[in-house]
Amino acid sequence: MAGGIGSRFWPLSTAETPKQFIDVLGCGRTLIQLTVDRFESICPIENVWVVTNAAYMGIVKEQLPGIPQSNILCEPCRRNTAPCIAYVSWKIKKQNPKANIAVTPSDHIVMDVPEFRKIIKKSLDFTAMSDAILTLGMKPTRPETGYGYIESDLTPTITKGIYRVDSFKEKPDIDLTKEYIKRDNFYWNSGIFIWNVNTVVNAFRIYQPEIARIFESMLPDFYTDREQQLINEKFPTCPNISVDYAIMENAEDIYVCPADFGWSDLGTWGSLFSVKSKGVHGNVAIGNNINICQSNNCLVYSKEEKKVVVIGMNDCIIAEQDDKLLVCRMSDEQLIKNFTD
Amino acid sequence: MAGGIGSRFWPLSTAETPKQFIDVLGCGRTLIQLTVDRFESICPIENVWVVTNAAYMGIVKEQLPGIPQSNILCEPCRRNTAPCIAYVSWKIKKQNPKANIAVTPSDHIVMDVPEFRKIIKKSLDFTAMSDAILTLGMKPTRPETGYGYIESDLTPTITKGIYRVDSFKEKPDIDLTKEYIKRDNFYWNSGIFIWNVNTVVNAFRIYQPEIARIFESMLPDFYTDREQQLINEKFPTCPNISVDYAIMENAEDIYVCPADFGWSDLGTWGSLFSVKSKGVHGNVAIGNNINICQSNNCLVYSKEEKKVVVIGMNDCIIAEQDDKLLVCRMSDEQLIKNFTD
Repeated sequence: MAGGIGSRFWPLSTAETPKQFIDVLGCGRTLIQLTVDRFESICPIENVWVVTNAAYMGIVKEQLPGIPQSNILCEPCRRNTAPCIAYVSWKIKKQNPKANIAVTPSDHIVMDVPEFRKIIKKSLDFTAMSDAILTLGMKPTRPETGYGYIESDLTPTITKGIYRVDSFKEKPDIDLTKEYIKRDNFYWNSGIFIWNVNTVVNAFRIYQPEIARIFESMLPDFYTDREQQLINEKFPTCPNISVDYAIMENAEDIYVCPADFGWSDLGTWGSLFSVKSKGVHGNVAIGNNINICQSNNCLVYSKEEKKVVVIGMNDCIIAEQDDKLLVCRMSDEQLIKNFTD
Repeated sequence: MAGGIGSRFWPLSTAETPKQFIDVLGCGRTLIQLTVDRFESICPIENVWVVTNAAYMGIVKEQLPGIPQSNILCEPCRRNTAPCIAYVSWKIKKQNPKANIAVTPSDHIVMDVPEFRKIIKKSLDFTAMSDAILTLGMKPTRPETGYGYIESDLTPTITKGIYRVDSFKEKPDIDLTKEYIKRDNFYWNSGIFIWNVNTVVNAFRIYQPEIARIFESMLPDFYTDREQQLINEKFPTCPNISVDYAIMENAEDIYVCPADFGWSDLGTWGSLFSVKSKGVHGNVAIGNNINICQSNNCLVYSKEEKKVVVIGMNDCIIAEQDDKLLVCRMSDEQLIKNFTD
């Protein structure tokens, strides 16, 4: 899933080049490239699918030249994750009704890739032989109010390390999150889902018949010259709804696989700051010519050949990209989205 | 005098384009243009002389097209103000031994130009009919340790508002400056001098015979094709010394004209901040697309078409120019010069 615009990550992330297409970590690979890299030993590149906005088609092709062009699906408009997942699921089902699928955002990061692969393999094994809807649950490390939480049942299932989901808790308040992180069976909802193609298509038929009907009606024309035109007409008629609301909170047979592979959704500058290793003064510098003096706990980002001098600053974000500059107190980062273009 | 490099004003001021050639105030005129503008009704443009470094010859011609090219003098290297003033004084004396001269830095600002002109006219009248060395003294408004101070005699002279100088106090410590600003007869040394050409040349002969000898020896070749070559050879042999040390602190007949025309030497970002008018939160924004939110007492400078967003910052300088960015706590600005190129 590569259609988001990451507005809280301004000025790095813009509608023109959202953060999945940017080398946020300063490691030489963009977030979407790192996402595809993570599946290297799990999924051959010709079986990787990308659903993105029509505006980003060119960037996707450029950054992921190994992916067959026919596997890059274009949404004519943004309709959240449910229509996006429905589109690619109906496409895949027509080609291979036995497909087993992992769905992932393209702008998250994973620090421990071997552990990630172990978890994904176990999850795919589980959904290959069951009709389970499986979600990955991240062990929470702080009372984060920006995430959804998953409450699991404690009873073991037939597969070790996979549990039934009792309930989803959408973005709870700070007091609730403090309670949740004390408990053993609460996890962050990573937005990574594993299921076989029949399970997901059936789930749409049952819980989102309106969306199912739209894609069912286009099915005969998928893989023909008429597909894109039909999508352009009918995709916008889909309800704007996340897969969490559309399926997860309604379905019965939902499972969670708890995982701990150094995950972050990189939703904000603070989350990038928290995953980067820091110098003695707690600063993070991403760039080639950044000079930090008498400053603590600052995140400084400037990938261009810009000489940046930071003197006497504490707890702030300094981020520079093209014709945009942000200087923001770390605790005020929720205000950034008010200034995006 | 336009040969300085203004290193405390980085990144706006660089060795390539020092601050006298920059529109620091954001008013559409550079500091050197504003300096020449101030003398408009006092001195015809063909009598304006600029002494600058060879590297800035092109910028001077471009920014001051009205000045005769032969009035732009090139120092082959930086030797502080005494050799600079000696050069132009010997030049002017050869052309017009009755010249009456005002010497001024090109990178200072004056808010009240009519008052400035009144003071300069009075000063020129005074030196036209006397051998006085006259300096302008600025009424101090704060205990500034970066300036030199002038202590005047309280006895009236024949010209109202002009006093004899008792002593010069070079950059005193903070306790002394606090004492000085309580007294009526202490002034900041503005670095603006008024004298007739014979007075200044004689002062060099008496107090700086070494410098006088160097320029005396070149005099026959001034205004010939050989002048620049001679200057290139001999100017570097001048001692590196300010006119304050070379003449002021030695000479006898020194006068001060106290003045109050909203002067600043713009030596630092803080001094620019102090002269600009501020919004309700005390911020100063110089630029076309600067957005400041929940911030107080910040100076934000970005003349380029850059979108700047500042959130939750207090008492800091944010300055951006070409491939350079500074973010600095206001009280740490003395550290800036350590990071200049």
